[in-house]
Amino acid sequence: MHTVAIVGVGLIGGSFGLALKEHGFAGQRIGVSSPGTIDAALRAGAIDRGATLAEAVHDADLVYLAQPIGRILSVLRELDPMVRPDALVTDAGSTKHLIVETARRHLRRCAFLGGHPMAGKESRGVANAGADLFRNAQYCLTPADPADLETPAARAFRDWIRRFGAREVVVGAEEHDRMVALSSHLPQLASTALASLLADDEELLAGPGLVGATRLAMSSYDIWRDILMTNSGAISEALTAYIQKLEYLRENLRSRALEEEFQRASETAQSIRQARSQPAEPGQ
Amino acid sequence: MHTVAIVGVGLIGGSFGLALKEHGFAGQRIGVSSPGTIDAALRAGAIDRGATLAEAVHDADLVYLAQPIGRILSVLRELDPMVRPDALVTDAGSTKHLIVETARRHLRRCAFLGGHPMAGKESRGVANAGADLFRNAQYCLTPADPADLETPAARAFRDWIRRFGAREVVVGAEEHDRMVALSSHLPQLASTALASLLADDEELLAGPGLVGATRLAMSSYDIWRDILMTNSGAISEALTAYIQKLEYLRENLRSRALEEEFQRASETAQSIRQARSQPAEPGQ
Repeated sequence: MHTVAIVGVGLIGGSFGLALKEHGFAGQRIGVSSPGTIDAALRAGAIDRGATLAEAVHDADLVYLAQPIGRILSVLRELDPMVRPDALVTDAGSTKHLIVETARRHLRRCAFLGGHPMAGKESRGVANAGADLFRNAQYCLTPADPADLETPAARAFRDWIRRFGAREVVVGAEEHDRMVALSSHLPQLASTALASLLADDEELLAGPGLVGATRLAMSSYDIWRDILMTNSGAISEALTAYIQKLEYLRENLRSRALEEEFQRASETAQSIRQARSQPAEPGQ
Repeated sequence: MHTVAIVGVGLIGGSFGLALKEHGFAGQRIGVSSPGTIDAALRAGAIDRGATLAEAVHDADLVYLAQPIGRILSVLRELDPMVRPDALVTDAGSTKHLIVETARRHLRRCAFLGGHPMAGKESRGVANAGADLFRNAQYCLTPADPADLETPAARAFRDWIRRFGAREVVVGAEEHDRMVALSSHLPQLASTALASLLADDEELLAGPGLVGATRLAMSSYDIWRDILMTNSGAISEALTAYIQKLEYLRENLRSRALEEEFQRASETAQSIRQARSQPAEPGQ
C-alpha cells in the first residue's frame, strides 16, 4: 500500500491519516476535502497533500471514503472511471446495506469492501482527530463475499486496521445495519425522545443522571439525517422492540419482574464496558 | 440549631454531616446507622457520635432522615413519641407524596418538612460522601403548607442548605413526584429498557455513545424498588408520554419533522447542562 486517498478529512478520515503515519506508513496520504479542511488537515499532519477527487484516486491503491453517507453514495456513483483496477475502495459510513449495494452496482473496475469503525467523539472535525481513535474499537467489515477479504489490497488494508489496535468484526451489511439500529441508532433516538419530552417542563428537577441520559440528544441532525434515511427499516424495528420493553416495564412497575430487568440490564451494561476496554489480541 | 440527628449515614446523610461541619456548624451531629456505618462515618468526620434512634432524636432540634424511602416511612410511623416539640423533622427521600402523607398522619408533636436534594453519585455510602455534594444542586422542599417554611426551625434548616451552595426549589409533593418521574425515574427506566433489550444480542457493535446511554442501567434495584413502589402512578404516566414520543419518531423517521425533534432535544439538553453548572445566587 503506497498511496492512500482519504476522501472527507473530518474526525474519522483525519484519524485514519494520523493513525497511518503513527504506525509507520511511508507512502502518500492525499486528502480530498474543502480548501479550509485541507489546510486544517495539513496543519494537523493528517495528510501529506490535498488534491481533487480525480487526481487523488488516480494514484491511489486505497481509497478511503469518510464523508457523510449521502456523499459516500454520490462518490460511489462517479468513482468507477477514475480508479486503478488493483485499488481497494472502502468506506467508513455508519450504515452499510445501501452503500454496499451502490458500490456493487456502480463500482465495477476495482474491489470494494464496506467498513464501519465503531469509534467517534462528541467533537467532530479534523481538529479533534487522533492517531489512537481506533485503538480498542471494533472495526466492522461487511464483505459482499468472504473472498473480498482475501484480495492483496484487502489484506493490506486489514493489516493496517490491526496495527491501529482495532478489533475486526466481519458481518453482513444487512446484519450490521440491524445491529447498529439497536446499539447505536436506538440509543440516539431514546435520548432525543427523552430530551424532547422534557422540553415541555418549565422548571426541571435535574439530577446528575439526567446529564448523561441527554448527552446523545446534543447530536446534530446533520449527521443523523442520512443514517435515519438509509436505515429506517431496521431502526423502526428497533424502536418497536424498545417500545414493547417499555410497556412491559410500565405494566410491571410494582412487581418483582422489574428486579430481573434491572439485573439483566446491569449485566449487559457491564459487559458493554468490558468489551470496550478490552485490548485487541496481539497479532490477531 | 444545636443538635442534629442524621438517621441513615450513607452518601446523602454523610454529605449532610460533612457539609454542616465545613460551613461552621458548632453543635452535635449524632448518627443513627448500623455499627459498621457509624464507625465509617466517624472516621470520615461526618458525625460526632453514634446513638440509637430514640437517644439521638431525644436531643435533636433537627432530625434528618436520609435512609431508603421504605425505612423513612417506617421511622416516621414510630418517631412521634421521641421528638422534641420544637424540633423539625425533614427527609431526603427521592419521592415525596407518600412520605409527606405519612408524616401528616403519624408525626403530630413536631413540624415536618419534606425535602429532596437533587444530588447523588454512582458510588454510594458514607465513604463517598463529600461536603460539596449539595453545591450548585437543586434542593427541593415540599411543604404541606407554605407556613411550614417559616417556622424558626425551618428557617434555620433552610439557612444551612443555602450555605451549602444548594438552590432551594419549593414545590408541592405531588408536583415534585410528577417532575422527578419525568426527569429522573424515566431516564432510569429508559436506560434499563435499552440495556435489557441489548442483552438478547450475542455480539454487540458498541460505539462510544452506548456506554453513556447504559450508565444508569448499572443502578441497583435495591435503590429503585422503593422509588417505583411509591411513585408508580406518575412513572406510568411518564412512560406513556415517552412511548408516544418514540412512536412519533418512528412514524417520522424519514421526514423533516425529525429535524425539529433533534433541535428541540438539543436545546433542552444544553439547558439542563447550564442549569446544573449555574452557581446559586449569593444570599438567595
